[in-house]
Amino acid sequence: MIRHTVTFRLKHHAGSKAEGDFLQAAGKLAAIPTVKNFEAFRQTSKKNMYHFGLSMEFSSTQDYQSYNEHPYHVHFVKTRWIPEVSEFLELDYEPLNK
Amino acid sequence: MIRHTVTFRLKHHAGSKAEGDFLQAAGKLAAIPTVKNFEAFRQTSKKNMYHFGLSMEFSSTQDYQSYNEHPYHVHFVKTRWIPEVSEFLELDYEPLNK
Repeated sequence: MIRHTVTFRLKHHAGSKAEGDFLQAAGKLAAIPTVKNFEAFRQTSKKNMYHFGLSMEFSSTQDYQSYNEHPYHVHFVKTRWIPEVSEFLELDYEPLNK
Repeated sequence: MIRHTVTFRLKHHAGSKAEGDFLQAAGKLAAIPTVKNFEAFRQTSKKNMYHFGLSMEFSSTQDYQSYNEHPYHVHFVKTRWIPEVSEFLELDYEPLNK
């Protein structure tokens, strides 16, 4: 199991329609066939700069690769992520004792 | 639900006994009564500097506070975390639509 996570902040104002539109589009990543256990979060720690988080799991590196190459993901990164996200950090987790 | 996560790297060499000892001590945080769904991970993305991750969930901010103040957590931070961790980032997640 690979848990792919990303924490980020948007260029949009908090509570704006543009923020809601972005989060709605991000939620549609859950429909990509190899994505399991998709979750969307607010990031609430004051110890960092990020406001949101996404988490999803893949059964294998092949499934993760399929997600990366999926047309909706590629389109989302190009048309929404790059123009609308100001800061982000990706973290990928695999069980420690596997 | 609050998912408290931390990603980190250690001062120890990869695969060393000191690394294993630290991870074993970290695993005992799972026994603190308010901790749910404790997980320990390797961080495998090449896009950041971190090597490990811990994730745990709390039912409420009170439960999170009880964990922070628990003697084992306080002792672990003082005697293991501060001397042995070189870099870390805490991220706390709460469901987006709650």
